[in-house]
Amino acid sequence: MSFQYYLELLGTFVFAISGALAITGKDKDWVGATFTGFITAIGGGTLRDILLDRHPLVWISDMAVVYTIVAGIVCVYFFSKTLGRLSKTLLLFDTLGISLFTIVGTEVALHHGVRGEIAVVMGMFSAVMGGVIRDTLTQETPVILQRGVYASACFIGAVIYLILRYFDLDRNLNFVISISSIIIIRLLSVRYEWAVPGFDRKFMRKEVD
Amino acid sequence: MSFQYYLELLGTFVFAISGALAITGKDKDWVGATFTGFITAIGGGTLRDILLDRHPLVWISDMAVVYTIVAGIVCVYFFSKTLGRLSKTLLLFDTLGISLFTIVGTEVALHHGVRGEIAVVMGMFSAVMGGVIRDTLTQETPVILQRGVYASACFIGAVIYLILRYFDLDRNLNFVISISSIIIIRLLSVRYEWAVPGFDRKFMRKEVD
Amino acid sequence: MSFQYYLELLGTFVFAISGALAITGKDKDWVGATFTGFITAIGGGTLRDILLDRHPLVWISDMAVVYTIVAGIVCVYFFSKTLGRLSKTLLLFDTLGISLFTIVGTEVALHHGVRGEIAVVMGMFSAVMGGVIRDTLTQETPVILQRGVYASACFIGAVIYLILRYFDLDRNLNFVISISSIIIIRLLSVRYEWAVPGFDRKFMRKEVD
Repeated sequence: MSFQYYLELLGTFVFAISGALAITGKDKDWVGATFTGFITAIGGGTLRDILLDRHPLVWISDMAVVYTIVAGIVCVYFFSKTLGRLSKTLLLFDTLGISLFTIVGTEVALHHGVRGEIAVVMGMFSAVMGGVIRDTLTQETPVILQRGVYASACFIGAVIYLILRYFDLDRNLNFVISISSIIIIRLLSVRYEWAVPGFDRKFMRKEVD
Repeated sequence: MSFQYYLELLGTFVFAISGALAITGKDKDWVGATFTGFITAIGGGTLRDILLDRHPLVWISDMAVVYTIVAGIVCVYFFSKTLGRLSKTLLLFDTLGISLFTIVGTEVALHHGVRGEIAVVMGMFSAVMGGVIRDTLTQETPVILQRGVYASACFIGAVIYLILRYFDLDRNLNFVISISSIIIIRLLSVRYEWAVPGFDRKFMRKEVD
Repeated sequence: MSFQYYLELLGTFVFAISGALAITGKDKDWVGATFTGFITAIGGGTLRDILLDRHPLVWISDMAVVYTIVAGIVCVYFFSKTLGRLSKTLLLFDTLGISLFTIVGTEVALHHGVRGEIAVVMGMFSAVMGGVIRDTLTQETPVILQRGVYASACFIGAVIYLILRYFDLDRNLNFVISISSIIIIRLLSVRYEWAVPGFDRKFMRKEVD
């Protein structure tokens, strides 16, 4: 079992936690928490593999993935007091999840034979689509559509990974560097309220009838 | 044509009805009703087959499925007066749909060669994801995230099916028993307001800023 | 490269524009605009190809598609002042997109070997599902569920395409006629407020508790 495999399991674990946290405090039950945790954890990677026609899906052939998700959800239930304030905890686990999945997803896509540009897109999809599905199901505005540095941190991390790979850096070291860069960018951006430039240059909302 | 085939058609029929009912009384037109009925009827099974890489999809290769869906939608239009109060009718058809699709979905997944645990997940996905898509499109909270016994009834039914199958019970008899058990659990749970244990143990909503 | 290829690229371009326009004026950033433009542009065609098991997906193997989408999004940013009032502009680009994608999607499905009825469904899915995903992400009621002539214009255009194809009309001429018919029907329907018959015959909303 490779380093990448354990990183993917860790990403699955923290995303299951972020999914279960997302419905915590919303008067939901164990089924809701399990469903949201499961969908958040497998959503991005599953979408990536379906787009790439990569079968069988990891969680269908490898039961460790399913048990990891269950473990994440149970952790939220039992350690919720220890986990501290909800919004900060959710941010932390979500950040860990997107950083791991971006780089693992980029690597998987490259290994599948697609071009670098598409691999970056696939890495970002792996990272953010689980959260997009989670937010859509819980009727929140998807994080990717909110202001702030989120998908762009994934983008930068994936590009760093590609560049270091081009220069033949050791693969595991490259994983560590590019994953860390996403975590650092994301957390600093929240702390210092960085933002990506707005898209509205001339249209004003009042123009819309 | 097997017993399973007719159960799947019946499930498709009642789910098309549940989809068309879901937008009834919401000032929608025939296109909206057809779209919602169609998506609800094929959503769960299609997702299951895409996840399992099972092609061609049933409704693409078998026109009977498409005509069954159209029949269900037309029925809602013409018999809507006879169908009685909307919420109870929707509950009945949705319950029939999830019970049929859970067991057919579990069986299809087992036949495809996956493990029992994954087959149960696939059975539940077949059953609930059509409704999840229906609710997302009509901007309702997905039923699976509401309190009450819904996906858990499917879960119990799928496990009953697996156990009886392990003891080599006649397949059609097993279908009847496990499907009935889902219907009974679901309807009793609504009548007596059974609920799955809540997930919030310590987090309070006020903790969230 | 065929006429159909350029029509598909043009459809991708205008759908990317419609996606980026959909979040214009909503305080979003470049990432949000790019994501929405991308998902809207590839959503319908990707869903069609996944349902038909047609791999690799166009945008994964052909970088021209990705660059076309980026061009569309950049155009919205720079020409937004010239584009005029938002609602009318969005209508125009969306109409162009659905007309092109309906016919290209129908043709692709027929070429893949499915029956005429399914090809029509696939054409409509190609056309409307990008917009359905766009509207779901931006938490709007999907256009297909709103009153008016939308998916039904696609339906009529796809049937016209099938009929002319049956009579062996020149393929490119057929494209022009059937695409134009969708554009004309859609724009006239908005101008004269045509509507598809309502679905609610007897149920009243007050019946619902």
